[in-house]
Amino acid sequence: MSDAVSTQIQLAERPTGWPTANTFRTVQVTYGDLAPGQVRVVNEFVSVDPYMRGRMNDVRSYVPPFELGETMTGAAVGRVVESASDNVPVGAAVQHQYGWRDVVQEDARGFQVVPEIPGAPLSLYLGMFGVTGLTAYVGLTEIAGLREGDTVFVSGAAGAVGTAVGQIAQLLGAGRVVGSAGTAEKVALLTERYGYDAAVNYKDAPIRRSLREITPDGVDVYFDNVGGDHLEAALDRMNDGGRLALCGAISQYNDTERTPGPDNLANAVTRGLTLKGFTLPSYMHLADEFRQRMSEWFAAGRIAYDETVVDGIENAPQAFLDMMRGGNVGKMVVRVGD
Amino acid sequence: MSDAVSTQIQLAERPTGWPTANTFRTVQVTYGDLAPGQVRVVNEFVSVDPYMRGRMNDVRSYVPPFELGETMTGAAVGRVVESASDNVPVGAAVQHQYGWRDVVQEDARGFQVVPEIPGAPLSLYLGMFGVTGLTAYVGLTEIAGLREGDTVFVSGAAGAVGTAVGQIAQLLGAGRVVGSAGTAEKVALLTERYGYDAAVNYKDAPIRRSLREITPDGVDVYFDNVGGDHLEAALDRMNDGGRLALCGAISQYNDTERTPGPDNLANAVTRGLTLKGFTLPSYMHLADEFRQRMSEWFAAGRIAYDETVVDGIENAPQAFLDMMRGGNVGKMVVRVGD
Repeated sequence: MSDAVSTQIQLAERPTGWPTANTFRTVQVTYGDLAPGQVRVVNEFVSVDPYMRGRMNDVRSYVPPFELGETMTGAAVGRVVESASDNVPVGAAVQHQYGWRDVVQEDARGFQVVPEIPGAPLSLYLGMFGVTGLTAYVGLTEIAGLREGDTVFVSGAAGAVGTAVGQIAQLLGAGRVVGSAGTAEKVALLTERYGYDAAVNYKDAPIRRSLREITPDGVDVYFDNVGGDHLEAALDRMNDGGRLALCGAISQYNDTERTPGPDNLANAVTRGLTLKGFTLPSYMHLADEFRQRMSEWFAAGRIAYDETVVDGIENAPQAFLDMMRGGNVGKMVVRVGD
Repeated sequence: MSDAVSTQIQLAERPTGWPTANTFRTVQVTYGDLAPGQVRVVNEFVSVDPYMRGRMNDVRSYVPPFELGETMTGAAVGRVVESASDNVPVGAAVQHQYGWRDVVQEDARGFQVVPEIPGAPLSLYLGMFGVTGLTAYVGLTEIAGLREGDTVFVSGAAGAVGTAVGQIAQLLGAGRVVGSAGTAEKVALLTERYGYDAAVNYKDAPIRRSLREITPDGVDVYFDNVGGDHLEAALDRMNDGGRLALCGAISQYNDTERTPGPDNLANAVTRGLTLKGFTLPSYMHLADEFRQRMSEWFAAGRIAYDETVVDGIENAPQAFLDMMRGGNVGKMVVRVGD
C-alpha cells in the first residue's frame, strides 16, 4: 500500500456559450491507504460526451448538473492496482463513472468488472460496447421502432453514436441508410466503413436540399444527433407514419439564446409522424440484451469502429471541446498515462 | 319526381394567406330525375372545419386538395327527400361528405343512414358524435395514451374539438384538465360547462406564463389544436415521459411564410417526451367504439355541447372564416334552409 497522486479536472465555473480556459481547473489529490472495501484504479481511458455540456448548466434535466468545484464525473475504464475488496481484485478491468481523473480510489461498489474484449482495447466500453452503442441500439429499436426495409437518415453520422447507428440499422434489416457529416473524409468513411448507402457533407450544400437528393423514396426513420437544420430537413422528407428518434441537438448545446425550432413541424400532423425524445437512463433495462447482440456482431467481424484518441488527462477539456466542434471520427476518448 | 335547384359553394381560386371574397363562388346546379340507385338529400347542416384550409392549398397532404371549380366537399347531414335505393329510404337522416350545398343528389352509396339522437339535432353528427368528437377521443386515447390522474392541457379549448377533449378527458379519469381560449366568455364556459378545472385567456398574458400558474405540477398530456406559442408553452411545462397529441395548428394555417417552431424542442430529449401527430383517416377503425361510448355518455347527460350556427348555405364561406378567427364556441355549423 502506498499513497497515490491523482490529477483531476474540476468544473471551475459554469460556462455561458462555449466553455473556455476558465471553465475547468486541474487539481492534484493525494489518496492515502485504502479503507476497507475500497479499490484503487488507474484509468486507461476517460470519456468525453456531448451530454456533458448540458450538465455544466445549472438547470433541471434528466441528470443533475455537475457540481462546481467537484471533479467532472463520467464514464471511464481502467485497471485495479490495489484492492481491499474480494469482488474487485487487483488486475481486473473495470468501468465506472468517476470521470476526468487518472487515478480513482473509492468503494468497490462504484466499479463494474468487465470482461476483456478479444482484439479490442478497453476503450470500447466507452464506445461501441458502452452507452454510445446502447444509445444507437435503443434509439433504433425502442424509440424509432425500426422495421425491415425502412429508409433511415442519421445526422452526426460520423460521430460516436452515428457510426454505431449506421451499422446497427443495417444489421437490423434497414432497407437504406443515409447520413450526414461535416468533412469529406468523414463522408467517405460513412459509405466505405460504416454501412451507409449514401452520405452527404452538410457544409457543401444546405442539408434540406442534399437530403432530398439521397432519399428519393423519403425517410421512414430519422435518428437525430444534431437538431436545427437537420431536423428540419428530415421533417421535410419523412414518409407517412415516420418516426424520429430525438437523441441530441449538438448544434445547439452552446447557444446562448433560444434557437427557433423547425419551421415544418406541421408535417407531424399531416403525415402522422412520431417524434420521441430519449435519454439512456430510462432504458438501461435493455443493456444486457444490447451487450449480448453487440458481442455477437463484434465477434463476427461485423462492427467497425474508429476512435479519436487524445493523450493525457490534463487534455480532457480540449478533447471535449474538439468533440463538440466535430473534430472526432467515431468515439472521442482521452487516453490516460504515458 | 321533379327537378331540384341546388345552391353550391365552389373553390374559385387558391388563397394566399387568408381566404377572401374571391376565394369562393356560389353556383346553382339543377338536378333532374333520379338515376337508378340515386337519392336526393336536402341538407340540414353543413360543417366548416379548420382542416379545410389546408385542402385549399395545392400541396401534398393526407387528403388531396380541393379541386378548383368544384363544390367544396366536407361533412354534412340531411334528410332523404327522394330515393331510388332500397337501402336509403325517403325520410331517413343521412350523413355524407358532399359538403357545401343545400341539396345533393348522388348514388346512395355515398350516404350513411344515421339514427336520430334523442333530444339533439342532427348537427351533433358534425360535432360531438362526428369527426370532432372522434378526434378528441382518438387524440386522448390512441395518440396521447391518457392515464388515470394525468394533468391534461388543451389549447383551443372552447372550439369544437377542445370542448370535447375536456369532457372526455374527465370521463376517462384525468386528474386535472386545463385549457386556453381567446375570450373571457369562452374561458368561463370551459370551467362552468366543459369539465375544465382551470382555464386562461391567452390574450390576457403570454400563455407561457399563465400556463405555469395553472399547472403547478406540470403537464402529462398536451392536446394541441393551436401550435405556435401554445406548443412552446406546453413543452416548457411537460413532465418526464409526457405525451403531446398534435392535432392541428390553427394559429398558422393562414400564414404566408414558414413559421419557426418551438424554441424548446430540446426538452423532448431531456424529458423523454413523445410528440405524435395524427389525422383522423388513419383511425377510423376506432369510430364504432367511440360512437358507442359517446352515446352512453350523452344518454347519461354527461356531455354538454354548444354550437355556433350560421344560417344559409351562401354564408358557408363567412362561417368558415369566422371559425378560423375563433368566432365560435363549440362546433361551427351552417344551417341550411329557412
